[in-house]
Amino acid sequence: MSAGTMNAVYYHAPRQFTLEQVPIPQVADNEVLLKVLCCGICGTDGHVHEGAFIAQFPLIPGHEVVGIVSDLGKGVTGFTRGDRCVADPGVTCGHCFFCRRGKSVLCENFKGRGVNLSGGFSEYVIFESKNVYKIHNLTDEEATLVEPASCAIHGMDKLNAPVGIEALVIGAGPTGLILAQLLKLNGATRVVIAANKGIKTEVAKQLDAGHGLKKDNPYGFDVVVEATGSAKIANDAIDYVRRGGTLMIYGVYDHDALVRWSPSKIFIDEIKDEYLIFFFLWLILTTHCFPRAVAYLDSGKIRVKGMVTDVYKISDYQKALDKMNSRGALKIAVKP
Amino acid sequence: MSAGTMNAVYYHAPRQFTLEQVPIPQVADNEVLLKVLCCGICGTDGHVHEGAFIAQFPLIPGHEVVGIVSDLGKGVTGFTRGDRCVADPGVTCGHCFFCRRGKSVLCENFKGRGVNLSGGFSEYVIFESKNVYKIHNLTDEEATLVEPASCAIHGMDKLNAPVGIEALVIGAGPTGLILAQLLKLNGATRVVIAANKGIKTEVAKQLDAGHGLKKDNPYGFDVVVEATGSAKIANDAIDYVRRGGTLMIYGVYDHDALVRWSPSKIFIDEIKDEYLIFFFLWLILTTHCFPRAVAYLDSGKIRVKGMVTDVYKISDYQKALDKMNSRGALKIAVKP
Amino acid sequence: MSAGTMNAVYYHAPRQFTLEQVPIPQVADNEVLLKVLCCGICGTDGHVHEGAFIAQFPLIPGHEVVGIVSDLGKGVTGFTRGDRCVADPGVTCGHCFFCRRGKSVLCENFKGRGVNLSGGFSEYVIFESKNVYKIHNLTDEEATLVEPASCAIHGMDKLNAPVGIEALVIGAGPTGLILAQLLKLNGATRVVIAANKGIKTEVAKQLDAGHGLKKDNPYGFDVVVEATGSAKIANDAIDYVRRGGTLMIYGVYDHDALVRWSPSKIFIDEIKDEYLIFFFLWLILTTHCFPRAVAYLDSGKIRVKGMVTDVYKISDYQKALDKMNSRGALKIAVKP
Amino acid sequence: MSAGTMNAVYYHAPRQFTLEQVPIPQVADNEVLLKVLCCGICGTDGHVHEGAFIAQFPLIPGHEVVGIVSDLGKGVTGFTRGDRCVADPGVTCGHCFFCRRGKSVLCENFKGRGVNLSGGFSEYVIFESKNVYKIHNLTDEEATLVEPASCAIHGMDKLNAPVGIEALVIGAGPTGLILAQLLKLNGATRVVIAANKGIKTEVAKQLDAGHGLKKDNPYGFDVVVEATGSAKIANDAIDYVRRGGTLMIYGVYDHDALVRWSPSKIFIDEIKDEYLIFFFLWLILTTHCFPRAVAYLDSGKIRVKGMVTDVYKISDYQKALDKMNSRGALKIAVKP
Repeated sequence: MSAGTMNAVYYHAPRQFTLEQVPIPQVADNEVLLKVLCCGICGTDGHVHEGAFIAQFPLIPGHEVVGIVSDLGKGVTGFTRGDRCVADPGVTCGHCFFCRRGKSVLCENFKGRGVNLSGGFSEYVIFESKNVYKIHNLTDEEATLVEPASCAIHGMDKLNAPVGIEALVIGAGPTGLILAQLLKLNGATRVVIAANKGIKTEVAKQLDAGHGLKKDNPYGFDVVVEATGSAKIANDAIDYVRRGGTLMIYGVYDHDALVRWSPSKIFIDEIKDEYLIFFFLWLILTTHCFPRAVAYLDSGKIRVKGMVTDVYKISDYQKALDKMNSRGALKIAVKP
Repeated sequence: MSAGTMNAVYYHAPRQFTLEQVPIPQVADNEVLLKVLCCGICGTDGHVHEGAFIAQFPLIPGHEVVGIVSDLGKGVTGFTRGDRCVADPGVTCGHCFFCRRGKSVLCENFKGRGVNLSGGFSEYVIFESKNVYKIHNLTDEEATLVEPASCAIHGMDKLNAPVGIEALVIGAGPTGLILAQLLKLNGATRVVIAANKGIKTEVAKQLDAGHGLKKDNPYGFDVVVEATGSAKIANDAIDYVRRGGTLMIYGVYDHDALVRWSPSKIFIDEIKDEYLIFFFLWLILTTHCFPRAVAYLDSGKIRVKGMVTDVYKISDYQKALDKMNSRGALKIAVKP
Repeated sequence: MSAGTMNAVYYHAPRQFTLEQVPIPQVADNEVLLKVLCCGICGTDGHVHEGAFIAQFPLIPGHEVVGIVSDLGKGVTGFTRGDRCVADPGVTCGHCFFCRRGKSVLCENFKGRGVNLSGGFSEYVIFESKNVYKIHNLTDEEATLVEPASCAIHGMDKLNAPVGIEALVIGAGPTGLILAQLLKLNGATRVVIAANKGIKTEVAKQLDAGHGLKKDNPYGFDVVVEATGSAKIANDAIDYVRRGGTLMIYGVYDHDALVRWSPSKIFIDEIKDEYLIFFFLWLILTTHCFPRAVAYLDSGKIRVKGMVTDVYKISDYQKALDKMNSRGALKIAVKP
Repeated sequence: MSAGTMNAVYYHAPRQFTLEQVPIPQVADNEVLLKVLCCGICGTDGHVHEGAFIAQFPLIPGHEVVGIVSDLGKGVTGFTRGDRCVADPGVTCGHCFFCRRGKSVLCENFKGRGVNLSGGFSEYVIFESKNVYKIHNLTDEEATLVEPASCAIHGMDKLNAPVGIEALVIGAGPTGLILAQLLKLNGATRVVIAANKGIKTEVAKQLDAGHGLKKDNPYGFDVVVEATGSAKIANDAIDYVRRGGTLMIYGVYDHDALVRWSPSKIFIDEIKDEYLIFFFLWLILTTHCFPRAVAYLDSGKIRVKGMVTDVYKISDYQKALDKMNSRGALKIAVKP
């Protein structure tokens, strides 16, 4: 099987891609070949396009893959041709400083399908079988949200939210909406989402306008999640954090963005905080979180219905990128 | 007992103090009167002098009290006149939003001896008996370090250091030296202290000069503690944090100081961090930490011998402040 | 106000109570007098009846109080006559070994309304204002569940459930049902309740009969909660714990009950567990958990509608005790 | 290299071993061949001898290996022939239920060198290079303690000891002595070791005799570690646990041993505990803990000098087993 060629978005260098015919990859032992049904696109793909992050070229991007098992390497058990699956794009080395210490999420040799290994904006893609998970109830489009949900679960693990907190999520992109749901199921008695349908600056304006957030929540929130990617909002978000609370920075920021806080103002004038926690998260840090992401989404406990607002063919990949950058879509899926 | 008057450093308003004769306070139920032997002075007293923080006037400052039990209120048990003691300056209300939630360290009505209640730069001072602890082996001067150690323990509680970490402490004031010892006894296999005998800018220069810290520690440190109070160093300290590590900001910063980091640089260029934790600590947050501070210091497990380098009379309080501000002393004690 | 007498269940000694006329208590500073609307009865009251636990006599029992503010001591703010409230029965000393270390829940001088201080099986009862919480949406009967919910939250705090666990709750009394709901809102993607409408031994039979629990859950559960009070079930419950999982023992057991496990079987034959955590909880350990219990129940996020199945007058207190011991009721409320 | 044969302790079945000539194993990619210098023997080897645990036959036992790099597979970097090393015996599968969830220590397909893969009671043994660690300062004999120290670190990770605790370690075998040192460096202000030079029952007698442990420690200990392997002591150890404290069961128990506690006694009569944590640990659970074990021991921060009291040749393996079972030795090393 799987001789022949396939269509793929193929980057020769940063910003230089074409739709090309490339060989269909061959499974090795313990690997699975997925026939791609759908592949989500997200901000990380924008970074990859620019050659930032840990991207390596030439490259077929696409790290939010949904597909059907099409071929199985020797030694693969638990899968049958035809199984509909999602896959964890991360590959860790097992022998670096961090892997030896059980912190594989920090692997020095971290590889990611769609980042520095061939990904899913193509007709077929390979994964190690241990990275593949069957789905049953999600549609193909909805299943593109499993990978972002997995990242969000990683963030929730780090947050380790106490019982019965109050939370504010700033930003209502797919990640913000998933984080808000995760918070409700993992400790929050109350979650407020601060966002509007418009662009980032609108959210900022809304916050500035003091649309009641501060007045209605004089004690602020135990947890504030910045999920817009705006450094201005990241700076201001601290004002909504309750004494002793936590600010989670969960976004991708412009290259020259700075967060800046005044320690003196924070603890002398406002006596604001005993402590804060800031997380700066990669966007493909899904290691070990996929099983729970699948469980949450495929069972419907985290709802992603309707989140995919736009679907493009891989032949229209530039349009998909443009739409994403325009911020006029909630979540975009790409299909072969 | 305790009728009559005593000498005290007495502020009528910020920056306006004199040595005055004031009435010796009278113990109420559950209170203890301490005859002051010694009282440490620290950066917080500088803030109090300026009227910043939660200072209220008129005020007798001094929150690092060592004294002898001189009178006992009704209902006080466990103490005898003549007991040599230290005392926790913090008083929490028990009924505010935070106290009801078991977070008394964040009390909205937090009172502190020497901050907004009469303190120890005087001949006598009152404490609730539950805030008083006997000491046996420490000298009077050494015992002034119990309160700063108690704050440091609070920081260590928040840090919750894992087993077998590597740590960098920047700054070698009393707090830096105590934190370094606490780290050794609470998880660190290795603690590096980055500091020199000079002033802050010297430490910064030393860090800049790349005196081998980065070269010798290519993986950085699991925990970096900024304990100099220099915002410049706080900004740079992040460069020494290992992936997934923690930066603890433990200092008092100038009013207009800003910490500023580039999220993009941190996680895209350097792929530096999965997460960071920053603590901004008040300097009198000792609630519930005194028992351990007494145990560590009075047993000699944390060594403070020789840390008090200068002793002044309360009649020379301005000289004590000047010396502290000159940064020419390690730790200064004031005696009646 | 509040001169005069009131009816109360009055114990002169263990097992010896009558309905008596006693003086209405007078509020001191910072205290609130509640006119009792309703007071729940639970297993702890059975222990108190026997003189076990930390009961002291003479005693008016009743620790799950719902009432209306009827009088206010000097210095009480935030309450008005007529406010409908629940109250935390626990009183900690603030100065013992544990309180000084911030572990007031372990207070050596722990006092409890209805246990060793006058409680709520009476027309009026006194609380410190800091222990009183207003309610708005709960009925009087439903509000008796706030105190048990508060204990359950304490258990959840200790459990510190990770994100996305699977849980088994054995027992479907009020506590089991509240714990199951708390688990769903605090980390569990899936909660299975093992119980039937009958008595404890029925639950045991059901477990023995292997009604599919083991077969359907070959990996067991991350968290198993034993909430029946049966030592037999506590012994067996370990069989449902996943490797590395946690068993929470949350019940009141007979005096001669023993839990017994074979370490060899657990870790050599079944290679069952890396570690287990067992909690043995007092039933009135509500300190600092009331605010969240009120938030959960009064907002309807934890549902208690219909849980109170039986209501008695305090003049029928023996009948209420008998009914509770018969295990024929879910939750019993007592009214003046 | 590595053609030819070598001597090895070779089990054909439980309890049936001989010294045999077997082929020297050949390194595959990413593997390292160690020429064995020394291999520790411990209780797990006794279980393996009986065919218990996860032992598989035929088998060359020995999981505490110290050796010299003698051959290197393709792709191995960071090692040179002649490097003196220790090695982590554990091999996890990466794809089972637990490994996919990041809990590789609970791997369903766990393999261990010396347990179900060829081990170190032989002249040569193979390891994946990622499991091998260079040592510099430890003697060959001392280095056999790295593996037990690694298990102890795993226990300490689970314990997550707070700052400034008091601890009791019952048992003074190598593990007890290493745990006591780890506790001192990871949170304990005070560690008491309860043991004598004799056998288990002597320790029990000592505890019973009330040699002052309870009198001298009226509040018990925050952490009690049972490290004797006596179920009787495990039962009694709970009496030394402070309210809210933790009991760590760290031992290997007889097949029919039972631990049994009375929940009623614990929480009603003695009001002993808010919660307890019991760990039941495998003895080869070293995954991800080796780097820290090497750091602690090779730096001398954990002292193991003199712990190896007996050395045998592999030709005297039965004598080594007998000596271990006699409990007359502290730690036994075996050499080819």
